[in-house]
Amino acid sequence: MAQTLSVSDAVELAVVERSGFIESRHAGAAIVLDPEGTPVLTLGGVDQPILPRSSLKPLQALACVTAGAALEDERLVLATGSHSGTDRHVAIVRDILDAAGVEESALGCPPAWPGDSATRDELIRELGQPDRLRMNCSGKHAAMLLACRASGWDTDGYLDPSHPLQLHIREVVERLTGAKTLATAVDGCGAPVYAMPLSALARAIHRIGTSSERSPFALHRSAGLLVQAVRAHPWAIDGPGRADTIAIESLGVFAKGGAEGVMVMVAPDGTTVALKILDGSGRAATVIALTLLVRIGALAAADVAQTLTRLPLTISGGGQDVGSIRPTV
Amino acid sequence: MAQTLSVSDAVELAVVERSGFIESRHAGAAIVLDPEGTPVLTLGGVDQPILPRSSLKPLQALACVTAGAALEDERLVLATGSHSGTDRHVAIVRDILDAAGVEESALGCPPAWPGDSATRDELIRELGQPDRLRMNCSGKHAAMLLACRASGWDTDGYLDPSHPLQLHIREVVERLTGAKTLATAVDGCGAPVYAMPLSALARAIHRIGTSSERSPFALHRSAGLLVQAVRAHPWAIDGPGRADTIAIESLGVFAKGGAEGVMVMVAPDGTTVALKILDGSGRAATVIALTLLVRIGALAAADVAQTLTRLPLTISGGGQDVGSIRPTV
Repeated sequence: MAQTLSVSDAVELAVVERSGFIESRHAGAAIVLDPEGTPVLTLGGVDQPILPRSSLKPLQALACVTAGAALEDERLVLATGSHSGTDRHVAIVRDILDAAGVEESALGCPPAWPGDSATRDELIRELGQPDRLRMNCSGKHAAMLLACRASGWDTDGYLDPSHPLQLHIREVVERLTGAKTLATAVDGCGAPVYAMPLSALARAIHRIGTSSERSPFALHRSAGLLVQAVRAHPWAIDGPGRADTIAIESLGVFAKGGAEGVMVMVAPDGTTVALKILDGSGRAATVIALTLLVRIGALAAADVAQTLTRLPLTISGGGQDVGSIRPTV
Repeated sequence: MAQTLSVSDAVELAVVERSGFIESRHAGAAIVLDPEGTPVLTLGGVDQPILPRSSLKPLQALACVTAGAALEDERLVLATGSHSGTDRHVAIVRDILDAAGVEESALGCPPAWPGDSATRDELIRELGQPDRLRMNCSGKHAAMLLACRASGWDTDGYLDPSHPLQLHIREVVERLTGAKTLATAVDGCGAPVYAMPLSALARAIHRIGTSSERSPFALHRSAGLLVQAVRAHPWAIDGPGRADTIAIESLGVFAKGGAEGVMVMVAPDGTTVALKILDGSGRAATVIALTLLVRIGALAAADVAQTLTRLPLTISGGGQDVGSIRPTV
């Protein structure tokens, strides 16, 4: 059976401290590429395969664009986002569906409650139900439907790994990672997701994060526009008060978390981090990535320290702060 | 700084599989004692310290009883439970507070939403707010207040580690574990919690789980009554549809999970498991404990297989089951 790194290939990346006692630890693998794309730091088995989950979205969004989906600005960010389902996010997903000329029912992602708790509570008070638009991946799915329309592909069956859209996405993924995909899995939202070495994911994200919108290559131009759009609209890729949004708006990084403890991040100078927490927890992923970027000199320690105060890293005891989740990299 | 086992002391206990790809792993330590209390299986660093978190509650509840708190049946279960905050749970906590002659405001645990989602949603529709009674540890806190009243101790400051109640609890903890506590931390609810080797926690839980209500020793009689009460009222220790409740009602075990991946379980024959998932996740804790009890012959494989269908172990992709959380012990 195909599988991710073993426990013995993982190294400690963060600890959870309560009243001065380290009670839990997160292990995994992490890789840092310098602005030229050369690995400058590796921790754990970075050449072992992982499922990138939503950290694959920038690659999937670019493939939708190269398949003809006309996506710019906030619509492009929603295509690459794991949004928190606020009304503002959902309005943009509707715009993409309108542009595709399809109904909400065409979305292949399952119905879900929004991740944003205020929005969820409002829906509960209004006796609302989970729906497909509120699901965090609905922007990606709307973009996939738009790409199908632009390329003349049937929107039925667009999530099948052998559908022309998914074959095209896989080709773009392999071009950007420079590696053959190692296995195909069904992501939480129903879309195909591909296993790849963590180092290959880092390579692809580095290419995207350092692309210019003035590149002679269409894929690179699109990548440059995507990163520019994410930095211009950080609220859209995640949500108010959430980790990717906070990291992007306060530090100008490109950041995209994925389920099961995956994180990719590109500093303004092009330094790139990719990491996988082996146990699948995301609670330490952002702080580990930011700390690695400080360690390598790509972000200023004081700026990151300021950002960390906005992340949910404190450990509570009786309503008081009694500890923290802290990186050990 | 005092700390739990290291990454290199932890061994794989479970994996998360999606579409045939193992994408995450949980490592930790586990120990199994036979009905006589002799260790018969150890995995990882079982003599390293852990914070037992809510798996300490059976010991704390017994200390409240030996301090004079008159607790029986469902009240005794609430004293040792991490309840899901339904109206039925809260009514019993109120009964304990009434018996102590104190108001809800005397509870030292912080306000919280109930863990039971239907109850939470109903509160949100009624524009309710988090409160102390709904907090999962409110039964333990009510029992502590009742113990203070019974012993003539001030209820103010009952969470201070130097308060007579907490000194008494610590003494009972050390008697049951047979070990000096290694560090004192503030638990999520504000109560003191003590670091101890995982093997010492297992020893204490084995003593409790094999005690008879007809023992010549008062502490053992109380322990026998506690375990009997938990088996008679499994809904009260956790909540409808939740893991400890399901395991107890379907298999007759005594089970008590704790935050950050701790689990203790005693089979009807007295075989005892204690485990700590190093990363703090509880999603695989119950299935690992049950699997160890099957492996050692204390539970029937077919019975456990039936119970596992009721636990949230399936991995979803597009609303379909595409994998599972499965033990590797």
